[in-house]
This record gives sequence, C-alpha cells and structure tokens, in this order.
Amino acid sequence: AAAVLANRSRRQSGEAKRPQPARVSLQAYTSLCKDSDPPECMRRRFEAVIAEAQEQICKQIEELDGGATFCYEPYDRPTGGGGIARVLKNGNVFEKAGVNLSVVYGEMPQDALKAATERGVQRGGVDLKPGEKVPFFACGLSSVMHPKNPHCPTMHFNYRYFETDFGTWWFGGGTDITPSYLDVDDMKHFHGTYKWALDEFGPDWYPKFKAWADTYFYIPHRGETRGLGGIFFDDFNSEDPEAVTDAYVPIGKKNQDLEYTEQQKEWQLMRRGRYVEFNLVYDRGTIFGLKMLATGVGRLESILMSLPETARWEYCFEPEPGSKEAEIMDAFKNPREWV
Amino acid sequence: AAAVLANRSRRQSGEAKRPQPARVSLQAYTSLCKDSDPPECMRRRFEAVIAEAQEQICKQIEELDGGATFCYEPYDRPTGGGGIARVLKNGNVFEKAGVNLSVVYGEMPQDALKAATERGVQRGGVDLKPGEKVPFFACGLSSVMHPKNPHCPTMHFNYRYFETDFGTWWFGGGTDITPSYLDVDDMKHFHGTYKWALDEFGPDWYPKFKAWADTYFYIPHRGETRGLGGIFFDDFNSEDPEAVTDAYVPIGKKNQDLEYTEQQKEWQLMRRGRYVEFNLVYDRGTIFGLKMLATGVGRLESILMSLPETARWEYCFEPEPGSKEAEIMDAFKNPREWV
Repeated sequence: AAAVLANRSRRQSGEAKRPQPARVSLQAYTSLCKDSDPPECMRRRFEAVIAEAQEQICKQIEELDGGATFCYEPYDRPTGGGGIARVLKNGNVFEKAGVNLSVVYGEMPQDALKAATERGVQRGGVDLKPGEKVPFFACGLSSVMHPKNPHCPTMHFNYRYFETDFGTWWFGGGTDITPSYLDVDDMKHFHGTYKWALDEFGPDWYPKFKAWADTYFYIPHRGETRGLGGIFFDDFNSEDPEAVTDAYVPIGKKNQDLEYTEQQKEWQLMRRGRYVEFNLVYDRGTIFGLKMLATGVGRLESILMSLPETARWEYCFEPEPGSKEAEIMDAFKNPREWV
Repeated sequence: AAAVLANRSRRQSGEAKRPQPARVSLQAYTSLCKDSDPPECMRRRFEAVIAEAQEQICKQIEELDGGATFCYEPYDRPTGGGGIARVLKNGNVFEKAGVNLSVVYGEMPQDALKAATERGVQRGGVDLKPGEKVPFFACGLSSVMHPKNPHCPTMHFNYRYFETDFGTWWFGGGTDITPSYLDVDDMKHFHGTYKWALDEFGPDWYPKFKAWADTYFYIPHRGETRGLGGIFFDDFNSEDPEAVTDAYVPIGKKNQDLEYTEQQKEWQLMRRGRYVEFNLVYDRGTIFGLKMLATGVGRLESILMSLPETARWEYCFEPEPGSKEAEIMDAFKNPREWV
C-alpha cells in the first residue's frame, strides 16, 4: 500500500516524469529481423526497445513472485522471424505469467490484416485485389499475468509495431487490468499511472485511450467488459513500455497475501472463463495469430500463452445481490471513470 | 460391457432395426412455434420429435448418473421462440450435462447465415443485397455430456431443422465423442452404432458422414481433432435422435467407475481446454448463436452450455512418448477408421 500511495502522491505533486529504472544488462539477444534490414531501421530499433522491456518486466515480476522464475526460450521459425518466450509457472504469487517477444514477417491473407487493425485493408492505402496477399513485418511484446490469489488482479499488456510493404506502418498496443474483486484504490492507481504518463502528450490522450479500451475489451455476448479497463491504442509511440510494472506491481504486492475462500477462488475461475471467451472470440492479437498460423507464420504456444491455467463455467451463475461479486459485476457492465 | 457386447452382436447379426424404447409421457410441452404455424407443418412436427427425444435422453442419462437430476427450465424470448433448458450438474457420473431444445425465428444478418451452414447465402438460392437480412426459423436439440471420470468420454450431439422464408429448408446435425484416453472397443461401439443406423439408408452414408465429422471437428490451429469423431451432416433426416443413447450410454456404464489419478484428471482438463478452443473459435452452432444474440435472438446460457465446468491450459505440455496420453494424441492427429 505504501508503494501505491508514494506513486499516487508523486503523480499528484505534478512530478514531470517517473525516474527511469536502472537499465538491465540484456541477455545475449540476437536480432530476429531479416539480415537485409539496416541497423538503424525502425524494425531493429523497436525490437531493441521491447527486448530490453522484456528483461525489465520479467525481472520485476520474478522479484514480486519470490518463488518461480521465467523460462527463457528463444525460437525461430522456418519461414523467418521468431521470438523469445518467457513463461513463469506455479510461482508463489503467479499461477501463470508470460512475457512473449515475437518478430514475424511474411505474406498475410487479407482477413489476417483485417484482424490486425481496426482499419483493415484501408490501412494499406492501396486497393488490394481479391485474394492478393499483403507482405508485412510485425514485432511485439505481449504479456499476461494470472495470479493465484483472487484478490490479485490479472494484468495484460501488448505493444507492437506493424509495417506493410506498401509503406504504411503503425504502433499499437494496450494494457488492461482484470480483477475478480473491486478495490477502487487499486483502480485509481492503475489508471492513474497511465493518465500520468499520457498527460505529458496532451490532456485528451488518456480519456481517448481509456474509452478505446472500454470498447475494445468488451464481450458483446455477455454485455460486459472482461476487466476494469486500461488503455488501448492503434497509433501511438510510447517509449515507455516498462510503465506496466509501475501500474501493476504495487497492486500485486498489496493483495498477494490476502486470505481467500474456496468460493472466492471459484469466482476468480469463472472470471477467467470470461477471459478465455474474450481472447478466443474477439481478441485481435489472438485471432490474427491463429489465422497466420495457417500460413506457417507464428507459434501456437505463444499465441495462446494468454489463456489462464484454469477456467470455469457454471451454468446460469448469478452473484447474489449485495455481494462483492455483484459489486464488481456492476463495474464490468457499466465502465467507470477511475481518475 | 455386457450392454456393449449385446449391442454389437445385434448389429453383427444383421438385425434390421433397434427395438424402439417405450415412449415416455411428455411433460406438458407447449409448442414454441408461431401461433400462425399450421398443426402439421414441418416446424411443429420436428419440434414434437425433438421434445420427445429430449425427455428420453434426459431420462436415460439420469438413470446412468444415479445421482443428480436435470433441471427443467422452459424459457421464451421477447422476440419470439424460446426453449427448454435441461442441465444436470455435479452428479455421480457427470460434472455437467445439458440437453437443450430451442426454437428461434426472426431475421438474421448474412454472416449469421454463413455461420449456420457451409453453403452460406447460396443455400437460399437467391441473391441477397448487401446488408439484406434473412427471415428464418430454426429448431434444434443439442447436448453435451461432460463426465467426471477421465476414462469416460465427453459426448456431444446436435440435431436441427432450418428454414428460410425464401422456401429453402434443411436438416443438419451430428454427434461426436471426445475421450481423454483411447479405448478401441468403445470407439468401435460408438461408430458401429451409427454405421448400423446409417447403413439402412445406403452403404455410402456412414463413410460420408464420418469423414465429414473428421473435417468438421478439426482444430486447425492445433492440427488435431477435438475428439475421435462421429458423424456430421447438413442435409439428412434421421428420425431417430435417441440413437445417441444407444451409442453413448453403454460406454458411460463401462467406464464410470474406473480408478484414475490426479495426473489423469489434469489431462482430461487439458483436453477440455481443446474443447473450449474448438467451440469458441470454430463451432458453427456456437458462432451462429453468439452472432444472433446481438440481434436479440437466443439465450446465452444455452449457447454456452456446451462448455465444460472446468478446463486447463498448460504451457507447452507434451505427453511423454509411449504414454497413454501420447497414444490418443496420435488418434487426434490422424483420424482413423473404427469400423
């Protein structure tokens, strides 16, 4: 709780910029770009930023967990590109946490491009013939943390750079938090951290990206969001992907040792069922990944790394009115402003 | 095992037709068709057949379970139609079993029609304008049984009648079995029951519908089927939906009391994870249902009744070579002929 308050007061005091964490020494990271990509091109620069972010984030999550460590699995694909899969299983705090770096390029079918961005083929600025494929490059870091304790929220973030051979490119990404129980202070901290980071660019950035996340992380067939939001963007270059640890780690620290009942664990697993529904039915990254697999690009275990270790579906479960479960359901059904 | 053998020998003896079970007395079933539908129309006749089948199947599954009973939840929708939801939870044999009857009609968007049938809008025999909606009627019985014991397979069936206001109509359906461990005799029995029933119509029916199921129940992103097949059809009128109990109940009886380890239970839950992946990403009925919900037609809890109570995803799990888990994986990856 101390860290949360320290952080909030730092924001409230109007301090311009969070102190940068000490840079970690990168493991011997070998670029997965094409040999022909020049050293200073955006592809390689973005790759270097996320490779360092992956190290930083894994290090801080391992410190928080205090038990298990992340595996380090570099892989490459016969079709070019590859990634570094880092997964932590069965820790003290985390049931399953993953931070995956991937570099993919090749030719994508138009329905994959449509899955990759809201603007779909228009994004290319060119008219594609039916069936014409789109040469592309994509590089990203994505992460999901599923803690054991139902009082500890799940957190996801994704940060990616996308380029087509037609000369268009964009950054996209987002982060959101998925608690099973509502703690308003935690939500103020999480959203506050991003508001504070984005306000530097302009007062309309946070509200715009926050509203975008409320729309993006919505499960239409449930009429509810999968969690309590965050930010989502398809056009933005933040050079600060490590902000995720500022936003999330203090919440983890605060809640990881709270006691919980079996019934609360079951509720958490039901919310994980919603997480599975969102990811398999609507999530752009997952659907893009599954479509690309059919063309030989990508790695299934990394695409589905976001799924929780366990999930639960109970027929016609309705939280009791007035319960803690009903309280957060209201926030899932009616997105709120937290800051 | 006795029932399995009796059934197989009946087939082998060339007995023409299974004896009909005694008709059960229907609960006071009220038709959910439109008042304007004439008494002898196909809509009402089909509805009567599946209403009786629902009773029969629930009765036999309750007998097999010997513990819990099915709820009986009639529901209707403000937009017309409705259904009877019947779900059994936490029984002796079954973790979750459901048999759902539904009657839906209204106007569907073209992407819902595409989800409803392989032939999509061509099925209507008319050219639809972009955005033009398709008035339709659909009526079906669908069921999934998820047993507790990992040696007891999951079973699914679906049987439906579909009509558009352009004068086209068709029957569709299918059934498949999803074991976590391979028992070749059980597969011979299950597939044999359907072969025996279909051979009556012609020698090419079973092989055609069996191959169709192997294609339909395939999970492209895994390169494997969700189970060990069954039959799938989009054009067929079997008047014998109760065949499912002949095919399944003896397998349940044979395996429900086998001992199992915690590790075997975890494997079952991982296979249930595949079940969730198939249903949310590819299953035509589920996708059609979720799309129709957006138009106010259908009932979410009935559409997602097929999901297991619990499912599990383990990062990069690979069965040990030579293990029982590896044995059935081979059958998931390489569909076999069982009879």
